[in-house]
Amino acid sequence: MSNRYIPNLWIAIPDSSLSDEQTRRDKTVKVCQFARACSIFRVKKIYIYHDRTIESSADLSLLKIVLRYLDTPQYLRKSLYPRTNQLEYAGILHPINAPHHRDRQRIRDVKLGDVRVGVIVKAGDGLRADVGLSDLVPFEGSGFHGKKVNVKIISTYPSLRGKEASQQDIKEYWGYEVLEVHDLSKLLESALNTQILITSKKGSYLKDKEAQILAGIKAFRNFLIVFGTPKKGVDEMLASEGSSINVYKYVLNMFPFQATKTVRLEEAILGSLSILNHVISK
Amino acid sequence: MSNRYIPNLWIAIPDSSLSDEQTRRDKTVKVCQFARACSIFRVKKIYIYHDRTIESSADLSLLKIVLRYLDTPQYLRKSLYPRTNQLEYAGILHPINAPHHRDRQRIRDVKLGDVRVGVIVKAGDGLRADVGLSDLVPFEGSGFHGKKVNVKIISTYPSLRGKEASQQDIKEYWGYEVLEVHDLSKLLESALNTQILITSKKGSYLKDKEAQILAGIKAFRNFLIVFGTPKKGVDEMLASEGSSINVYKYVLNMFPFQATKTVRLEEAILGSLSILNHVISK
Repeated sequence: MSNRYIPNLWIAIPDSSLSDEQTRRDKTVKVCQFARACSIFRVKKIYIYHDRTIESSADLSLLKIVLRYLDTPQYLRKSLYPRTNQLEYAGILHPINAPHHRDRQRIRDVKLGDVRVGVIVKAGDGLRADVGLSDLVPFEGSGFHGKKVNVKIISTYPSLRGKEASQQDIKEYWGYEVLEVHDLSKLLESALNTQILITSKKGSYLKDKEAQILAGIKAFRNFLIVFGTPKKGVDEMLASEGSSINVYKYVLNMFPFQATKTVRLEEAILGSLSILNHVISK
Repeated sequence: MSNRYIPNLWIAIPDSSLSDEQTRRDKTVKVCQFARACSIFRVKKIYIYHDRTIESSADLSLLKIVLRYLDTPQYLRKSLYPRTNQLEYAGILHPINAPHHRDRQRIRDVKLGDVRVGVIVKAGDGLRADVGLSDLVPFEGSGFHGKKVNVKIISTYPSLRGKEASQQDIKEYWGYEVLEVHDLSKLLESALNTQILITSKKGSYLKDKEAQILAGIKAFRNFLIVFGTPKKGVDEMLASEGSSINVYKYVLNMFPFQATKTVRLEEAILGSLSILNHVISK
């Protein structure tokens, strides 16, 4: 179990992802479904690419802010996200409960080496970090007021101190980044060391390529799954950029024999990640 | 592709499935997620078993009515489901668009052999059926006023006539039945010719049993996947009935390495069905 090779899992979705929902409430709930699926299956990056077939991407900013909000531990949400219209429905969303969403903790229970997501606070001469404890933690290192930072505890109560954690200090899944790219084709062309899987209703069955993908998986550091929307497939997205889906090796229909007319994007993300997690869980 | 062996797919969920949602709106939306997942993957029966660990199953009736409502073609919903409180939020639900949810159609476009879900209407001496056309269809056969029936067109416009369709007349996925059982253990013990898969966070990985399940799949006519809730696993459900999970061969963790504390039931159903559909899609 522990020596399973897990590539860095990334997904790409269009900025039109919320266009089939009418109200801000429904759009917000849909983003939460994306966030939960990505968190369950350890997705590290969510790329949002521009859908050229739509006029403007009115939902882009909502999509980004709700994704980032949900990736933030609950104890930091208030200080990092002042109440705005876009977060009007944040209160009704299901919790994510990922490993970096630590509970508020008694300050004397914090252990050496613990890592907690924090925010730097300028206090007098020095820096402190709000890491969701009853008191701020003196912070050794540099940074600006309001910066989000992973804090590793290097001295415990009563002389609690922290510094910025390195990659090696973090042994669990630590949430996702949200990145914006203008062209899907440029993202795909520039993704080095990355296995690309394009989801498409017109694609082949993953089952037929499973052995091939598994054999190749260790050769790549990253695994990127690309989604379109039920209205516009990835083939149309790439075509609108003057590119073509045909140059990609893995264009796969993740839901063969589907009985409903469409599979919704939130369903496609959760379903595809479930299948991929199963495939690589050996 | 067409000669894939597809067993009859059934699921079992507890009558406490909606207990983690607070409002009727949220409960209704959750049922729609169940209904969509079951429809995408051709589930034919949804068993609802009684969770003995809860006092009363206040949501059971909501769960049943919304599931059945969503399985009904839109043209029959108004006549079969008078507006009640329980369907207060039916209007905000995503459509299912399964094959038996035919569009309203021009009466002269209906073809010989077409099958449409209908309701019997007593009209004068004879029986007619409302099958979502601009006119009722004379119905050959027996039945009572208000009975839901699958109608096969045996004569086209202008002398349109229908009779009850047989199993052989229906070549597509035709929705699910909703069935209520008191004891999960009794359902499992009495399920003949049925491969049983119990989902459990404490189970083995499907990957390790995949070949075995695939090899056995043609020996069974039915495939039943059993779900608990994130709060009470199937092991606890069976224990509360004086039974035990240990007698079952396939107790499987469908989401190994999950990063979030829990996988919600609507996610577990969609994810598990996605994986199973992938596994048997060869």
